Amino acid sequence: MTTDFAATKRLFHLPEGMIYLDGNSLGPLPKSAAARVAKTVTAEWGDMLITGWNKAGWMDMPMRVGDRIARLIGAEAGHVVMGDTLSIKVYQALASALEMNPTRRVILSDTGNFPSDLYMAEGLCRTLGPAYTLKTVAPEDVWDQIDETVAVTLITEVDYRTGRKHDMKAITARAHEKGALAIWDLAHSAGALPVDLSGCNADFAAGCTYKYLNSGPGGPAFIYVAPRHAERARPALSGWQGHAAPFAFDLSYRPATGAERMRVGTPPILQLAALEASLDIWDSVDMADLRTASLALTDQFIAGIEAACPTLHLATPRDHGLRGSQVSFRHPEGYAIMQAMIARGVIGDFRAPDIIRCGFTPLFIDESDVAAAIAIISDIMQNNLWDRPEYKTRAKVT
Amino acid sequence: MTTDFAATKRLFHLPEGMIYLDGNSLGPLPKSAAARVAKTVTAEWGDMLITGWNKAGWMDMPMRVGDRIARLIGAEAGHVVMGDTLSIKVYQALASALEMNPTRRVILSDTGNFPSDLYMAEGLCRTLGPAYTLKTVAPEDVWDQIDETVAVTLITEVDYRTGRKHDMKAITARAHEKGALAIWDLAHSAGALPVDLSGCNADFAAGCTYKYLNSGPGGPAFIYVAPRHAERARPALSGWQGHAAPFAFDLSYRPATGAERMRVGTPPILQLAALEASLDIWDSVDMADLRTASLALTDQFIAGIEAACPTLHLATPRDHGLRGSQVSFRHPEGYAIMQAMIARGVIGDFRAPDIIRCGFTPLFIDESDVAAAIAIISDIMQNNLWDRPEYKTRAKVT
Repeated sequence: MTTDFAATKRLFHLPEGMIYLDGNSLGPLPKSAAARVAKTVTAEWGDMLITGWNKAGWMDMPMRVGDRIARLIGAEAGHVVMGDTLSIKVYQALASALEMNPTRRVILSDTGNFPSDLYMAEGLCRTLGPAYTLKTVAPEDVWDQIDETVAVTLITEVDYRTGRKHDMKAITARAHEKGALAIWDLAHSAGALPVDLSGCNADFAAGCTYKYLNSGPGGPAFIYVAPRHAERARPALSGWQGHAAPFAFDLSYRPATGAERMRVGTPPILQLAALEASLDIWDSVDMADLRTASLALTDQFIAGIEAACPTLHLATPRDHGLRGSQVSFRHPEGYAIMQAMIARGVIGDFRAPDIIRCGFTPLFIDESDVAAAIAIISDIMQNNLWDRPEYKTRAKVT
Repeated sequence: MTTDFAATKRLFHLPEGMIYLDGNSLGPLPKSAAARVAKTVTAEWGDMLITGWNKAGWMDMPMRVGDRIARLIGAEAGHVVMGDTLSIKVYQALASALEMNPTRRVILSDTGNFPSDLYMAEGLCRTLGPAYTLKTVAPEDVWDQIDETVAVTLITEVDYRTGRKHDMKAITARAHEKGALAIWDLAHSAGALPVDLSGCNADFAAGCTYKYLNSGPGGPAFIYVAPRHAERARPALSGWQGHAAPFAFDLSYRPATGAERMRVGTPPILQLAALEASLDIWDSVDMADLRTASLALTDQFIAGIEAACPTLHLATPRDHGLRGSQVSFRHPEGYAIMQAMIARGVIGDFRAPDIIRCGFTPLFIDESDVAAAIAIISDIMQNNLWDRPEYKTRAKVT
């Protein structure tokens, strides 16, 4: 183990008395991000004004930051670009992939996919016309359901509810064998576990940065375009920042070289600045070490909760090869239980209808945090502390 | 005049010795934005973490901020929503409008439109199929070219190069008379002059906030959907934040009520926080006062430059009714002249091939600034101070 996770933990702002098992939903603040964003606001926007696009390097941030993400997801440098939101990046990947496989009309996804991916695919099919369909199958049936009708698979590697992990290499190989392209959504993978896009021969990938990558609320997304497609993938969302010569202001679109063509409009510089501060921490992390630490934490949590809380039923695979970096338990009163946990400082997520979801993020969560969380949850379950009216009233976001 | 522009000027950070005539490209920093963003980073993201979506009101920001923009553009409250970039919002408006006018296949725009709007339309037409076309005519021909083949007009009200202003009311009325819908791009209108979307019966509008609305580099865009279309306009980019019940995680898309359905992914909270700080200033501004002040400044600049610099040729209409809030002059050596201006602290933009563009923003530019800018430009032109090799080497962004 070469990564010093005790050191990385000290680089995050973690509120006193809180055990934050929700870094898979919104990562915590890297301490250096406050100063970094402040510098971007005052010394760059404030003092440089429009010249910041050159002087502060804003114009190149989407590619420069993309290169730092590339290492974490096994992508080739120069083939990841930042911008927009994950939903938009999924749309871009889908539209390009469908155009590259013009004789086919089916997008294959699964019911464990994050709904926004399905909604974006649905919207694209409506725009393309009635010949196009989104076929959604059970997660365990994906491999079998890839046939010669499928143009592209759109799969989220790690299930946002259960933490079940797909086999990216096997599904991608199957897609290629059947003449389909493979798009991977890395929302719960990037920064959660080692990803090897290049080694898996993925065609496209997209992900967000506000979860494990700690870029803050609404941080930008990324998209990966495999080098072999870089000059073929034609953007459907063809914005000026993805033009070969944005400042020529030509009346017709000509795509930029490679992944940069997937830029659309003006990038969100303040959010990118926060992300850069987080990536300073990530630069010191070895992804194999991260995986070792993550599996130890999730194993510890599963064992502790199962030993103390027999009414909580594990929704996450026990098999390491099938597990992301979160652990979910099911309980019919999951919502109230999560509220009771939050009231005691253990922050996780509830996901309808019955999922209690906890994320394990070695950069700032360690064995003692997990032990403390197990003790609190055990107390809540053994003494029915969740059974209070105030924990049963649902707020809009949980 | 009820707006105190001397007071608003004191609320912006304006670097010493700089006359910033580029608020139409990137607005300056509202002094309060630094503290507002810092609070969002540390007290909200840092201390509230995931609970910020409720506790800090992040979830409602796109609609809450949209309502404050609505007043500035003559939109009905509840019908403007923030997010993404202007290019994405243009795409959404176009896709919805085409679907609402299903027997027609032509998007009509003009060569004075900002190229990204044309590129997005081009991309949408490619996705929709060969029956769809983007027809681009000269700006002065738009009214005449609206015929029964046109599904939708996509017009930028104020030309980004010349500052020439279209007649929104007349063009919208003509579009409706011919059975077309009208989309307005307000990039150089929102915060630049009074806009009356409701009174003009506009169908859709979109705009950015980093120019006259001072939200900082990469600030979010907005989209307006006319109330009469609010329940009919179906989003092509159907993301989870525009779903009727985003946290139900349904597998199928159901649009939210009204303009909120145009939300796509997770909104950029840090950028929205900066925008809110700027809108605190905008709340005190009467748009009629702004227009009076803006026309006085542009008149002053035109008169001063024409009197002193006979080789600079006015590209902006003299007629107040046809003018936005910028003044552009043409000169074959426009690039070098702009570099010489910047070297002397007068910041404007060069736009290919020969446009020297200056924005006039009464919130922080006054008569004395304009007089000082005229004196500097006159000196540069009368003494050929632009004629130096270092001013002729083009940077990537200018």
